[in-house]
Amino acid sequence: MSDKTILPATGMLVDNEFLFPIRVYYEDTDAGGIVYYANYLKFAERCRTEFIRTLGARQQDDLQGPEKTAWVVRHCEADYRSPAVLDDALVVSCRITNLGGVTVNMHQEIRRGDDVLVAIDVKAAHISLATKKPVRIAKELMEKLI
Amino acid sequence: MSDKTILPATGMLVDNEFLFPIRVYYEDTDAGGIVYYANYLKFAERCRTEFIRTLGARQQDDLQGPEKTAWVVRHCEADYRSPAVLDDALVVSCRITNLGGVTVNMHQEIRRGDDVLVAIDVKAAHISLATKKPVRIAKELMEKLI
Amino acid sequence: MSDKTILPATGMLVDNEFLFPIRVYYEDTDAGGIVYYANYLKFAERCRTEFIRTLGARQQDDLQGPEKTAWVVRHCEADYRSPAVLDDALVVSCRITNLGGVTVNMHQEIRRGDDVLVAIDVKAAHISLATKKPVRIAKELMEKLI
Amino acid sequence: MSDKTILPATGMLVDNEFLFPIRVYYEDTDAGGIVYYANYLKFAERCRTEFIRTLGARQQDDLQGPEKTAWVVRHCEADYRSPAVLDDALVVSCRITNLGGVTVNMHQEIRRGDDVLVAIDVKAAHISLATKKPVRIAKELMEKLI
Repeated sequence: MSDKTILPATGMLVDNEFLFPIRVYYEDTDAGGIVYYANYLKFAERCRTEFIRTLGARQQDDLQGPEKTAWVVRHCEADYRSPAVLDDALVVSCRITNLGGVTVNMHQEIRRGDDVLVAIDVKAAHISLATKKPVRIAKELMEKLI
Repeated sequence: MSDKTILPATGMLVDNEFLFPIRVYYEDTDAGGIVYYANYLKFAERCRTEFIRTLGARQQDDLQGPEKTAWVVRHCEADYRSPAVLDDALVVSCRITNLGGVTVNMHQEIRRGDDVLVAIDVKAAHISLATKKPVRIAKELMEKLI
Repeated sequence: MSDKTILPATGMLVDNEFLFPIRVYYEDTDAGGIVYYANYLKFAERCRTEFIRTLGARQQDDLQGPEKTAWVVRHCEADYRSPAVLDDALVVSCRITNLGGVTVNMHQEIRRGDDVLVAIDVKAAHISLATKKPVRIAKELMEKLI
Repeated sequence: MSDKTILPATGMLVDNEFLFPIRVYYEDTDAGGIVYYANYLKFAERCRTEFIRTLGARQQDDLQGPEKTAWVVRHCEADYRSPAVLDDALVVSCRITNLGGVTVNMHQEIRRGDDVLVAIDVKAAHISLATKKPVRIAKELMEKLI
């Protein structure tokens, strides 16, 4: 048995756009037979997490480091164009559109094949969990994000 | 034992704004110690559901009626200003800002006391589950929404 | 406007059984048209939280106290007898069946009218978040639980 | 760009045990800093879904077929031994322990490396969505499950 085979999906960077695969399960759907609208934001966050993991950052390390920090979403806009349904194999994209000292703007899409089902724009800030104040993004991560 | 006492919270209409109370439970929070960003959209949807229930509409009836219909969110914008935490007693508001024949625009806020923690603008459409096409909002509901 | 009217549901103790009302929303359901099986455990946890809140304990205080503690579920058994659907008004019950120094056993039911839809038995332990070791339940809470 | 690389994780069958990888995201955790207890049941269900997908069955086909059917959980028992945290790479297992005409019993484990964090026993039934009555498992699927 290859260990590699049973690792979670990790996504890949293609032309400055990070791509992450998602499968739609029962938990994601609602009684309307489609994915519940808030759950696309979960898909988007998984993709962002894998993006920064690919760049070498682990969120659990941030939470447990000497200065506990975390990424929080400051603003989010979602345009729902077409619904995803149970069993769909989707791809979530993430492209950085603006990079500040403590914030990152990203454009994300939830795609099924060539169709963009949902387009999401997110502004995330890097904060201290203790003070809730913004904390400068680490230089090493910054250099990778540029 | 009064049956009334153990009914779920229902909310109330005050000056054209519907107000609905929410308690924050463990399920709503994340390892950052705050409410997970997608979950505010669940709070917002509970408030919208209670709003139209107050007006006499039951979503389960729509799902099971001769023409199965449902409300779907077409667009959603959330501005996260301050986080909610475990045990918070919040109030979710909903005010109709525009009413079309098949769509409704609403402004919603997640409040703790006088603080607006999250402001959410939602555009919802009334669709047929079979065709996914827009379906005119029932005249009786329309008259109450105006 | 009465503030009381827009407070979240709180539940009530009737003959040593705590009762808490729940409304089923879209977020709780799945594409099968019924409540997703894991979500009944959320309902059960909300009821347990309100139960101990009624007894004067706030979980957020525990999380932020000098010795950060939390209740964790050690064992859980759920018997699914009949499904709940969108818009259902349910009552969740909680009765303590055994009380140890660091653990509590509870029998819970998710009811719609006189029907028991799901029966759940839970064993919860009171632990330190730092050490993950059991921590004796506070004497004041203990006396109220007996 | 290889399409294969961005497909969702699929799991694999090893000695009659199906193994499926899971990554823990913020959405899965709670303010206690660990995975919320109900969410392990979501992990377990994803694994069961991939298991039957591997055997050639798609749940969306069942939902939309001439006789709409679905798998529902009748009974579930979870033993929580050790918590999973943010960023954990877990493996979920599923082994069939008993196979009836309309029900399946499975033993599942949520593992991190060699540690079993949660052990779950599930009894699922195959039902008609219209009548909620049990429906015999298709012969082709049955032969693969044995």
